[in-house]
Amino acid sequence: MIRVAVVGAAGYIGGELLRLLIGHPEVEVVGAVSSRFPGKRVDGVHPNLRAATDLLFCSAEEVTECDAVFLALPHRVAMGQVEEWSQRAKLVIDLTGDFRLNDTAVFERYYGEQHQAPHLLDEFVPGLPELHREALRGADMVSVPGCMAAAGVLALYPLIARDLIDVQAGAQFDARTGSSGSGATAGPANLHAERSGAMRVFAPTGHRHEAEITRHLGLPAAMTATGVEAVRGVQTICHATLRPGVDKQTVRRAFREQYADEPFVRVVAHQRGIFRYPDPKILLGSNYCDVGYALDEDAGRLTTIAALDNLVKGGAGNALQCLNIRMGWPETLGLTFPGLHPL
Amino acid sequence: MIRVAVVGAAGYIGGELLRLLIGHPEVEVVGAVSSRFPGKRVDGVHPNLRAATDLLFCSAEEVTECDAVFLALPHRVAMGQVEEWSQRAKLVIDLTGDFRLNDTAVFERYYGEQHQAPHLLDEFVPGLPELHREALRGADMVSVPGCMAAAGVLALYPLIARDLIDVQAGAQFDARTGSSGSGATAGPANLHAERSGAMRVFAPTGHRHEAEITRHLGLPAAMTATGVEAVRGVQTICHATLRPGVDKQTVRRAFREQYADEPFVRVVAHQRGIFRYPDPKILLGSNYCDVGYALDEDAGRLTTIAALDNLVKGGAGNALQCLNIRMGWPETLGLTFPGLHPL
Amino acid sequence: MIRVAVVGAAGYIGGELLRLLIGHPEVEVVGAVSSRFPGKRVDGVHPNLRAATDLLFCSAEEVTECDAVFLALPHRVAMGQVEEWSQRAKLVIDLTGDFRLNDTAVFERYYGEQHQAPHLLDEFVPGLPELHREALRGADMVSVPGCMAAAGVLALYPLIARDLIDVQAGAQFDARTGSSGSGATAGPANLHAERSGAMRVFAPTGHRHEAEITRHLGLPAAMTATGVEAVRGVQTICHATLRPGVDKQTVRRAFREQYADEPFVRVVAHQRGIFRYPDPKILLGSNYCDVGYALDEDAGRLTTIAALDNLVKGGAGNALQCLNIRMGWPETLGLTFPGLHPL
Amino acid sequence: MIRVAVVGAAGYIGGELLRLLIGHPEVEVVGAVSSRFPGKRVDGVHPNLRAATDLLFCSAEEVTECDAVFLALPHRVAMGQVEEWSQRAKLVIDLTGDFRLNDTAVFERYYGEQHQAPHLLDEFVPGLPELHREALRGADMVSVPGCMAAAGVLALYPLIARDLIDVQAGAQFDARTGSSGSGATAGPANLHAERSGAMRVFAPTGHRHEAEITRHLGLPAAMTATGVEAVRGVQTICHATLRPGVDKQTVRRAFREQYADEPFVRVVAHQRGIFRYPDPKILLGSNYCDVGYALDEDAGRLTTIAALDNLVKGGAGNALQCLNIRMGWPETLGLTFPGLHPL
Repeated sequence: MIRVAVVGAAGYIGGELLRLLIGHPEVEVVGAVSSRFPGKRVDGVHPNLRAATDLLFCSAEEVTECDAVFLALPHRVAMGQVEEWSQRAKLVIDLTGDFRLNDTAVFERYYGEQHQAPHLLDEFVPGLPELHREALRGADMVSVPGCMAAAGVLALYPLIARDLIDVQAGAQFDARTGSSGSGATAGPANLHAERSGAMRVFAPTGHRHEAEITRHLGLPAAMTATGVEAVRGVQTICHATLRPGVDKQTVRRAFREQYADEPFVRVVAHQRGIFRYPDPKILLGSNYCDVGYALDEDAGRLTTIAALDNLVKGGAGNALQCLNIRMGWPETLGLTFPGLHPL
Repeated sequence: MIRVAVVGAAGYIGGELLRLLIGHPEVEVVGAVSSRFPGKRVDGVHPNLRAATDLLFCSAEEVTECDAVFLALPHRVAMGQVEEWSQRAKLVIDLTGDFRLNDTAVFERYYGEQHQAPHLLDEFVPGLPELHREALRGADMVSVPGCMAAAGVLALYPLIARDLIDVQAGAQFDARTGSSGSGATAGPANLHAERSGAMRVFAPTGHRHEAEITRHLGLPAAMTATGVEAVRGVQTICHATLRPGVDKQTVRRAFREQYADEPFVRVVAHQRGIFRYPDPKILLGSNYCDVGYALDEDAGRLTTIAALDNLVKGGAGNALQCLNIRMGWPETLGLTFPGLHPL
Repeated sequence: MIRVAVVGAAGYIGGELLRLLIGHPEVEVVGAVSSRFPGKRVDGVHPNLRAATDLLFCSAEEVTECDAVFLALPHRVAMGQVEEWSQRAKLVIDLTGDFRLNDTAVFERYYGEQHQAPHLLDEFVPGLPELHREALRGADMVSVPGCMAAAGVLALYPLIARDLIDVQAGAQFDARTGSSGSGATAGPANLHAERSGAMRVFAPTGHRHEAEITRHLGLPAAMTATGVEAVRGVQTICHATLRPGVDKQTVRRAFREQYADEPFVRVVAHQRGIFRYPDPKILLGSNYCDVGYALDEDAGRLTTIAALDNLVKGGAGNALQCLNIRMGWPETLGLTFPGLHPL
Repeated sequence: MIRVAVVGAAGYIGGELLRLLIGHPEVEVVGAVSSRFPGKRVDGVHPNLRAATDLLFCSAEEVTECDAVFLALPHRVAMGQVEEWSQRAKLVIDLTGDFRLNDTAVFERYYGEQHQAPHLLDEFVPGLPELHREALRGADMVSVPGCMAAAGVLALYPLIARDLIDVQAGAQFDARTGSSGSGATAGPANLHAERSGAMRVFAPTGHRHEAEITRHLGLPAAMTATGVEAVRGVQTICHATLRPGVDKQTVRRAFREQYADEPFVRVVAHQRGIFRYPDPKILLGSNYCDVGYALDEDAGRLTTIAALDNLVKGGAGNALQCLNIRMGWPETLGLTFPGLHPL
């Protein structure tokens, strides 16, 4: 049993962390920090946890030493608190955007401000087990990637790793996301009547997550992001150029080999069926990232598709997977919910 | 051409009023009053009106004399402004709850505060053409009923008018509504992620609209109101007790007779078909209220069903229908959009 | 480890049974019977089970002896097969409507045909642990109740059991349901474009589930059923008359006492909060039935609200809970998923 | 008054044609041809037309001579019937894919079969007023473009027309569509429970509409098409490469100039606001195609966004606009519905 705290526990990522951690056999939640609701019941904000917990939110000051802390704070807040938390917890797992980029110039371009803890950028291991599992085993600081970035990276990585992509040609990413990605703070833009049924291009160019993809894949990434009708769920389409001569067989093999032993990545690229390509609809609540692909062999164009639940594999679940790796526990511990169909 | 102003023009009812009035051949909109957005473009808030109008929102002070003013204000604000507006406009059409009840004690019970203009309660003619058409022809003050009340009244009135209902037994109303009914002001409760897919009983007993129904039908009404997944649309189910001996034939005839010449009420009670009972899904944007019924003859129980678009027949469209009547214009002028299927 | 088979495994209830049984530590699924897809992969139809199982559908003939069989067949099919299945399996758990009523006359009225196995009606124990737990411990045949009936019964039972309801006055049930309740067979009525956003009154009076409620509660029940926009989820509102003098305190106590030790019923009736009454939105995938209530004390009227996931507590999950009881296992085994928020 | 017939009148496009034509002041509908429902009421299939029409469906044989006929048939059916219809009607407006491409080889590649009327391919004028208005004034045969193609073409055409795009680099189109695009025929794929909330990549590469775009814009187009949660609405994103030196100013001017006088194309590319880029949500029922753009000037990348209602500007409305042009009527006649907000 280890002792963990969640900071920003009243948000949507915070709620998912609590759901997963409360159900985890090796973890005791010793703090659910919320600056807005200290002293209030956790299940007042996260009603799915009724009967599962009697926990109250607490203030940051009330958290004493613990083994691990998860930072589910707004972007740009974590970098001001991380040193303090790292003194109280052996392991810090950050779910914000603050430590996802390791180049301050890139950070400033995408986040519009100076980094407050540049000396820590290299301390953080990217929380992407499929690319950084070994480093995660010894990590003391982990930075969980953005939901659309994680999807984008996982669906192109097998080909990048085998040098099958014309990297110089870059790649175009089209990401679609549900409304929970913009968090639990109410505003005109996420009012139900405004957001419902929308196809809202909120970032036609230059979404932040493209910088993460560029970092991880080493190719110029361009991302367009659209909010579609869903609460949870992210789908990232990627268009890239194959190196001459790369055929479908080779692509298929790359995916199969890469993910054969991955517990949370499934290759979904079937000839037929309603769900023959990755669709977040069947992944909600689960920690899977499904990845698929299609080729236009004449043109040498590759299209990949990735889907995940932005709050689970795109956030809280992925963070817990990192914790499991770090602690040497079975990687799927507490993460076996398979998703629902239909939903 | 008459000159009209809309007060509260940045809200959802205000937006529908503008859409309908801009498309009306006998009306010129001379003021779109918004306390939040004076000087801003109307189509910045109501994007469906792009290319339809270059109107700017204005302050209340900027509205000079006009022929008619529509008050689309928050509940409890209209009653403080109505005297002032009635000095500037010959006709005041109020869409708030402030003048829907004509008994101050009932008002206080349901709205939780004293009425600020009790002397005007009897001046207001209920804006329900199907019950008050004659009075509306000479009205200077009109109070448009609540959306769920209008639906509830219209689906029971034919039987009440013919004394076919056991009035003493009262009636139970179950109303379901989309999210636009709670207005354009953002808050935690109408955040997309919270409201999407909900079946939210926001008034298990004692919804305000039951008081309106009681007033119009003269029977004790009890209403339960639930928010369901929709932006627009209201459906009100009513359960009442038939007088002994009233059979299906009689009920059918009552509905047919009552609404034979009504331009905006359709009787929908078919033996088969997907849309054999009223469903707001096919009414969005239209001024129709569809009404239907079913009987359990053995038990003497009657179930009626009514559906409408809360922003149109449940608000702005109904208000315009009242204006058309008051001005002696064809009642359907500017209100002929039939609704979409599928949608 | 016991050996179980699911008959009708390609339907939506069948899929949920497989999801739950595959994740259950004491169960081995030895047959997933589908007349349409024998030999095909289970995860081709239930894509959420990819990576969870390599099971193939089989024909009924391929199922040899087993410990328990779940019948997730269309209504009216189970009664023709039950004797045969009961010879192959010690325990038969039926999820159809065929054995929910114990009076053939009532069955005929509601199902429109003669019962094919009337001699078995009394053999079946109702699969409602909250009312029949003791009988279930020794049952060889279990009939799982209808989803809307289960919700309706659970929200009124505490008061019926304490004789707080005027039973002669009857009760009105207003049920709302998602589209998965009508099964996986495609037709015009459940085409996405037709069903999406609907408020479809498919049973204004006389829904079958009212007969089940009448059986279990012993009061005349009338049910109206409406399809609303949702895939999963049922909510049943009930209006009943309190016996004179019954106050809110008494009602609250009845609910608290009745369900204090129930693992899957939560009393949800709060003063404030977005989810202060039962809403299926936060229950999807979980085995909870949330129940709540509100009173109009002046009028002596009680309104109760119940919500559940029709495929889980309204079907597969409830069936598994019955199995757990029958086998003497912990009642929550394999049923601990708490539901997601937001979703 | 001209006499028109709609063939395939029971489909979704057929229904929209009827809605628009019934409301059109210069048109009389003399035939609503349906092979499935001859003799049945039109409003039994299109319930939004209740009270608007008493029309019955008829068989093809019952349609005598008329001035114009609209073919809203399944793809590949129109090409077998067009000669016959052209003998009965002076003007044929085809809404299928059969005459959208003017190259039989390309047709065969995309539609998988031989063309049955290749000699007519050049007779058809593309029904895209914004590109072919003059030709439409004298056309006897019109082929209305695909919904996603129309959107894609309109959002890139201003730049193509001014030679601002690197045509050789091609363009990537990412299209999202509601479920009504797949028609009114029920099947497992468009079952509500399966389709609801989906992000379904049904054409990762090689969607048919890319061939239309290539034809109209003269650049190699690649299209990915995804079904998202919506009944109506299409959004097409396009990624293209600007010629060196083309800046935002130039792009803005191209759009403004191109569409300054177009009645149904609005340029939507604002600095702020919830609807600052084209979103079909506010276009449903309207004949608008909104187009917008964003640049990554450093990379020379252009992203355009187009949105429309697939059944209106992507089908029936566009067809009626073509008829208005052909007849010399005001182009907006019968097409002035502005769309709803919120919806």
